[in-house]
Amino acid sequence: MKIVADENIPLADVFFGGLGEVVSVPGRTLNAAQVADADVLLVRSVTRVNRELLENSKVRFVASATSGIDHVDTDWLKEKGIGFAHAPGCNADSVVEYVLSVINVLSEQLGFSLKEQVVGIIGKGQVGGRLLRRLEALGVRCLVHDPFAPAEKTEQQAELDDLLAKSDIISLHTPLTKHGDHPTFHLLNAHCIGLIRPGSILINSSRGPVVDNLVLLDRLRQGDMTAVLDVWEQEPDINPELLDHVAIGTPHIAGYSLEAKIRGTGMIYQAMCRYFGFPTRVRINNVMPIPVLRSMTFSSDVQAEEAITTALRAVYDVRRDDNRLRLALRQRKEAVPVVFDRLRKTYPERREFQSLKVRLRNATPDVKHQLEGQGFRVVSE
Amino acid sequence: MKIVADENIPLADVFFGGLGEVVSVPGRTLNAAQVADADVLLVRSVTRVNRELLENSKVRFVASATSGIDHVDTDWLKEKGIGFAHAPGCNADSVVEYVLSVINVLSEQLGFSLKEQVVGIIGKGQVGGRLLRRLEALGVRCLVHDPFAPAEKTEQQAELDDLLAKSDIISLHTPLTKHGDHPTFHLLNAHCIGLIRPGSILINSSRGPVVDNLVLLDRLRQGDMTAVLDVWEQEPDINPELLDHVAIGTPHIAGYSLEAKIRGTGMIYQAMCRYFGFPTRVRINNVMPIPVLRSMTFSSDVQAEEAITTALRAVYDVRRDDNRLRLALRQRKEAVPVVFDRLRKTYPERREFQSLKVRLRNATPDVKHQLEGQGFRVVSE
Ligand SMILES: NC(=O)c1ccc[n+]([C@@H]2O[C@H](COP(=O)([O-])OP(=O)(O)OC[C@H]3O[C@@H](n4cnc5c(N)ncnc54)[C@H](O)[C@@H]3O)[C@@H](O)[C@H]2O)c1
Ligand SMILES: NC(=O)c1ccc[n+]([C@@H]2O[C@H](COP(=O)([O-])OP(=O)(O)OC[C@H]3O[C@@H](n4cnc5c(N)ncnc54)[C@H](O)[C@@H]3O)[C@@H](O)[C@H]2O)c1
Repeated sequence: MKIVADENIPLADVFFGGLGEVVSVPGRTLNAAQVADADVLLVRSVTRVNRELLENSKVRFVASATSGIDHVDTDWLKEKGIGFAHAPGCNADSVVEYVLSVINVLSEQLGFSLKEQVVGIIGKGQVGGRLLRRLEALGVRCLVHDPFAPAEKTEQQAELDDLLAKSDIISLHTPLTKHGDHPTFHLLNAHCIGLIRPGSILINSSRGPVVDNLVLLDRLRQGDMTAVLDVWEQEPDINPELLDHVAIGTPHIAGYSLEAKIRGTGMIYQAMCRYFGFPTRVRINNVMPIPVLRSMTFSSDVQAEEAITTALRAVYDVRRDDNRLRLALRQRKEAVPVVFDRLRKTYPERREFQSLKVRLRNATPDVKHQLEGQGFRVVSE
Repeated sequence: MKIVADENIPLADVFFGGLGEVVSVPGRTLNAAQVADADVLLVRSVTRVNRELLENSKVRFVASATSGIDHVDTDWLKEKGIGFAHAPGCNADSVVEYVLSVINVLSEQLGFSLKEQVVGIIGKGQVGGRLLRRLEALGVRCLVHDPFAPAEKTEQQAELDDLLAKSDIISLHTPLTKHGDHPTFHLLNAHCIGLIRPGSILINSSRGPVVDNLVLLDRLRQGDMTAVLDVWEQEPDINPELLDHVAIGTPHIAGYSLEAKIRGTGMIYQAMCRYFGFPTRVRINNVMPIPVLRSMTFSSDVQAEEAITTALRAVYDVRRDDNRLRLALRQRKEAVPVVFDRLRKTYPERREFQSLKVRLRNATPDVKHQLEGQGFRVVSE
């Protein structure tokens, strides 16, 4: 079996080496000739998968190691009976931890206690749903707006206007859609941005155009609210003035943990095994590299909040990524789009909270429960 | 034996309880009547110790649990044959770690590698000398200017002008003096500040008036250098505009680690025992509270720089104190001097690097050496 794989799929050899011959190719320039005699094609979001690429090939199964599938013509694959899989949610925990790191840093900078905030989550899918669970583990009150996947508890459910007007922190987790019942393009328009209360925080790690960036910039110029952007309109040519006005700005890297990338490979490996009826011999947890920071030990009188802040920042402090972007743009050595793309390509290794073992000595069940709820592996001693 | 002690001397009971009856008093309002029948007086910097306070008392020994002695009339004590001790250098490591945290944070924000910087140290006493040793442990090139305590290595020694013109990072560690051969009041005047190269960093954690703050503000307005201030002219009524122009600004807390405070008590306890010929039964290390963060474990492929950054920030990230000051002043609920003093009085617990056990698994001797050189307790496993 010949497996053609984007060279940027991490650990492709480790996962797929036992299933066939793996040929690595640059995904961006992949062409029909290169896949003509392949049985399986493994891509990332930079390869357009359509009739043009595959009609003269013998490819029977395609997989994308990404959570999105905008680059794949799934209708055509279905029509041709070509199997397809992707990795929905593979980077959802990574995005959730980006948001948690943002909130943690802002709580220090703006002086609030997360437990006293109302967090409004717009879009309760892979990311939004998991963010909701982690916040609930801390006892944070959340409002949820998602017309397609209503909240489980009625007290969470909110109309968009209501959520915007009532939340101290608003986090966006919808896809970008221009059609259908509830399109999200400029979902946050002038009307909606006007509803956000003075002092509130808006975090966008979904897709840039879900927020009207120029309207947001106008509001930020007034200096009465805080915004955090990982995604921007016109990426990679982002508006430097907007960066100057956001509290934290990063180059679309919320989902870039190492775990997310390897999980993406692991999920399509499992799907391929299922499709062809192969046993799954490689386990994601067995091939995950050992983290540089393995464990932290807290003493018995640690408070949950202090332990979470210390552990969270040791694993991922979002200021690192904010500094990288600001610094590179301030140096003015490269054009904005070049900087943006380069920072994404050379993203330094980042691990998820689960990579850290938190050792507690005689800690209260509540401290343990809250740390676990945040995603850390807790060992009581 | 009656021991009158400032109520803000931490662990005074633990150290002195075995030597006599300890009476706690507010140091700021301490008067002659309160010390009349005391044998020993223990103060901090808020109590003026002089003839007026002591002439009608039977006090035989005075100690100040502080590194400075500006508040004590030592000549008069000597004349009367009253024993005296203080705690020079008790908070020197705390200040050193403040500076190391500052440099670490700025290296991320400004994008430099510490190993490639030249650090100029002005004043090589308790603080400056220890800072020098910790930087040398990292292989950082240092220049030293101290007319009273010349550098050990000739290549370190520098005239002030030369040091200012050649250093990427300049750190001040002189006392504040207005008389004598080399007074330090406005040591950094317009001429000297003009010598600092564009792009360089000035850190002042000595005494505010060692730098002419208005000249510094003028230079910072040009935006071509970076300043960090822990000490300010006219404390506690600091200039908010100057705070707006420094990269990191804190309310004179560089020396405020818990270790520094307890070490101060321990040092005067030892001095008192020596003075009266008592055995020293209480050991500083035995009474030091267990830190909340006890240990961190790194895997074998950790690099020294990454381990140091992670450990250092987990123990003390100076941005916490910078945020506290900016936030409190932005809220405009209290006058500037009130904020400044309140933040010092309610300073949150901070530990020194030595409180953290860093566990290394099969790390190279170099990684171990560098972490130890930074002050962490390293355990190789
Ligand atoms: N910044 C990053 O690095 C990064 C990484 C991963 C995902 N993302 C983005 O995050 C977003 C969420 O990803 P996901 O995996 O959770 O997607 P998902 O498809 O699992 O969830 C999206 C949710 O949004 C809801 N939704 C759709 N239209 C809505 C509307 N008008 N109002 C409210 N809710 C609406 C859907 O019902 C769904 O529940 C996507 O835009 C994705 O592209 C960004
Ligand atoms: N920010 C804080 O919280 C904090 C805490 C502790 C100490 N301090 C201050 O830090 C400074 C250093 O403290 P220390 O304990 O190291 O004092 P120290 O007396 O041990 O050392 C001071 C050194 O400065 C040198 N010096 C004097 N005049 C000089 C000049 N003109 N040029 C260069 N060097 C000169 C002296 O020779 C001496 O070596 C003091 O001002 C002290 O008050 C601040």
